[in-house]
Amino acid sequence: MSDGLTVPFALAAGLTGAINSTAIIVTAGLAEIAAGSIAMGLGGYLAAKSDAEHYAKEREREKREVAEIPHEEMREVAEVFQAYGLTEDETWPIVQALRRKPANWIDFMMRFELGLEKPDPRRALISALTIAGAYIAGGFIPLTPYIMAHTASTALLFSIALTLAALFLFGFIKGRFTGMKPLRSALQTALIGSVAAGAAFAIARLISA
Amino acid sequence: MSDGLTVPFALAAGLTGAINSTAIIVTAGLAEIAAGSIAMGLGGYLAAKSDAEHYAKEREREKREVAEIPHEEMREVAEVFQAYGLTEDETWPIVQALRRKPANWIDFMMRFELGLEKPDPRRALISALTIAGAYIAGGFIPLTPYIMAHTASTALLFSIALTLAALFLFGFIKGRFTGMKPLRSALQTALIGSVAAGAAFAIARLISA
Repeated sequence: MSDGLTVPFALAAGLTGAINSTAIIVTAGLAEIAAGSIAMGLGGYLAAKSDAEHYAKEREREKREVAEIPHEEMREVAEVFQAYGLTEDETWPIVQALRRKPANWIDFMMRFELGLEKPDPRRALISALTIAGAYIAGGFIPLTPYIMAHTASTALLFSIALTLAALFLFGFIKGRFTGMKPLRSALQTALIGSVAAGAAFAIARLISA
Repeated sequence: MSDGLTVPFALAAGLTGAINSTAIIVTAGLAEIAAGSIAMGLGGYLAAKSDAEHYAKEREREKREVAEIPHEEMREVAEVFQAYGLTEDETWPIVQALRRKPANWIDFMMRFELGLEKPDPRRALISALTIAGAYIAGGFIPLTPYIMAHTASTALLFSIALTLAALFLFGFIKGRFTGMKPLRSALQTALIGSVAAGAAFAIARLISA
């Protein structure tokens, strides 16, 4: 959502530095929202799908290894703990206990040897729709003033005010959920949007000068 | 890099559906590259920084808990293993061994209770520069034809050919590194770019019709 706000905002601001037709700016903005939401949503979907496949493939491999070369796998369990200063004797009971429960043993290796979490099968679709939806919702905030206003320069002022407020609010809420200080998260999010928009504006003005 | 290729490509293609001035398309494309590379690079940097802070904060908390409520923490170690079907007796030697090495115990809790990896302190900067650099490099590929060609419709054809080839190549290389089938990864990456560009083109043409 933060990217969905920032990039269309910066693009519209940048174009205001070069042309004064709100129609072209709105067209560019909507094209960007369509492109960005699809690229990120579909990209996220396919990435989640291949994570799930990667997990399934690695699990098959661990399953085979636990069945075919159990002593090698037992040594690997012991190594996981030796990294934390445990001796081989101290890890022995765990190794033996896992050996008696092969399904748990495989899960244990996936998490602690390979550091892979079991992916939620529905996550791919939900995350794709969330990303795309947030990008679209975010993109309309900076663009609405250009749809309403008659001149691009007036629209830019409203767009700056509206987008900074939205970035600030979004950063604040995000901070609360991620355990970061909300005010700091709000300022950071607004800063990223401002720097990106400023750079886009400066570049567009330079080219068209 | 994939987003850096796809979004400017789709934006330029979309604008070609609406206007025939390569100057405006190039301006919009460069503004998008500036905005996208900064938003993603700076966003990535700050996200990595707050991950590192989150890790440090959680480590402090675990350190305090290991010192102040060791029995509670010992129970938590045992619970990690009980999730894998081990009895409390079987986990006892591990709990005792960790107890004698508090620094290892804290690291163990970070990784196995909280599932947090120690972040590399230089990662934030490197990942930010990589993301921004890749976005810029990627963005110039679809845009170059619009800089060179005289009409937007000619540029669009070259841009489609060049970008599809780049997406295909990039997807292929990515597939080799991530263990996915290279050809499938190549086709997926090219598909995302095509769908995003097609949607941007359709929307821009609809608005300007």
